Amino acid sequence: MSQVRGPRGAEAIHAAVLDLLAADGYAALTVEGVARRSGVNKTTLYRWWPSKPALVAATFRHAIARELPVPDTGTLRGDLAALLRSKTAFFADGPGRLAADVLAHTGADAELARLADELLGQHRTHVAEVTGRARARGELTGPVDDTLLADLLLGPVWLRAVVTHRPLPPADADALVDTLLAGLPAHRAQSPGRPAPRRS
Amino acid sequence: MSQVRGPRGAEAIHAAVLDLLAADGYAALTVEGVARRSGVNKTTLYRWWPSKPALVAATFRHAIARELPVPDTGTLRGDLAALLRSKTAFFADGPGRLAADVLAHTGADAELARLADELLGQHRTHVAEVTGRARARGELTGPVDDTLLADLLLGPVWLRAVVTHRPLPPADADALVDTLLAGLPAHRAQSPGRPAPRRS
Repeated sequence: MSQVRGPRGAEAIHAAVLDLLAADGYAALTVEGVARRSGVNKTTLYRWWPSKPALVAATFRHAIARELPVPDTGTLRGDLAALLRSKTAFFADGPGRLAADVLAHTGADAELARLADELLGQHRTHVAEVTGRARARGELTGPVDDTLLADLLLGPVWLRAVVTHRPLPPADADALVDTLLAGLPAHRAQSPGRPAPRRS
Repeated sequence: MSQVRGPRGAEAIHAAVLDLLAADGYAALTVEGVARRSGVNKTTLYRWWPSKPALVAATFRHAIARELPVPDTGTLRGDLAALLRSKTAFFADGPGRLAADVLAHTGADAELARLADELLGQHRTHVAEVTGRARARGELTGPVDDTLLADLLLGPVWLRAVVTHRPLPPADADALVDTLLAGLPAHRAQSPGRPAPRRS
């Protein structure tokens, strides 16, 4: 599921994109520059990727497929914790850090927002694969919105690694997975009828 | 708890910051420009806020305190759902949209990352207030990491509203809160001993 289609020389193309992003950032990146650096004909690049964001998205998809294998530990808890740790590590440096830097500049840019949405979609397929196996094991039998679960997993990772630059500590990663699996500890639902204390 | 200290003329200062952010963005904003537009002496501004990010952070704190009252519905579920909906709405337009635009450009900027961390801290105090009342009602008796819970709430809101520009639908907000309170539906923990299916 994580196979990446592309022309011959795809490795050189993606390496060139990452090199140029690391050197000058997303704004300065051009398809022409990637063609020069990779030695792949510009028309070939455009045949596969009609635009700069499409090319950059393909490079990040390629990096994610290569660096973020979907874990298969035999339990949902193990798989979710492994996903969380690997994604936290992914954003820390290398291609993941470059992706974070690009996606930390989406701002009002609709093209970058689509790129972010596409990469988030790839992350969601990883979560869906993990929950699918949990269902096959009978470990998960209720209705679960895989998209929501994926966002619950990646959201805190994102806030810490990308927005505040304070990556999620491993202990928090485990606590996060426990909360997603079992809910808040010792929570007793309560009827809204009971009067709430006034705010001071 | 949401009181905001500031000099006389604080309202005019924060309004000027928001106007200038809306007009020209964060990069173009200067303390001098805020002084000119608000009619407040530049030295007064610097006495209260030693830097541009400190001033912008104060403006966003002020907006959050004014536009995001901490809900008190009488139940933890009601409060978390109300927090989630109000924060989703906050990022949709007005000062919240401006804050999202600024924080969607943190990139490698350590100053902006600190600003983001400070505003995230304000959000976390809202969640802590809500869980504190739930404890006082006996609705929550187990150990809960309020910081983690806050990030679990805001993470998906952030990914949707700020990164991918696809705000969280209200139905997803309710499902998200249910997951946080009760965990994944019909999840049965399983021992890692059981062999996992090979990946195809």
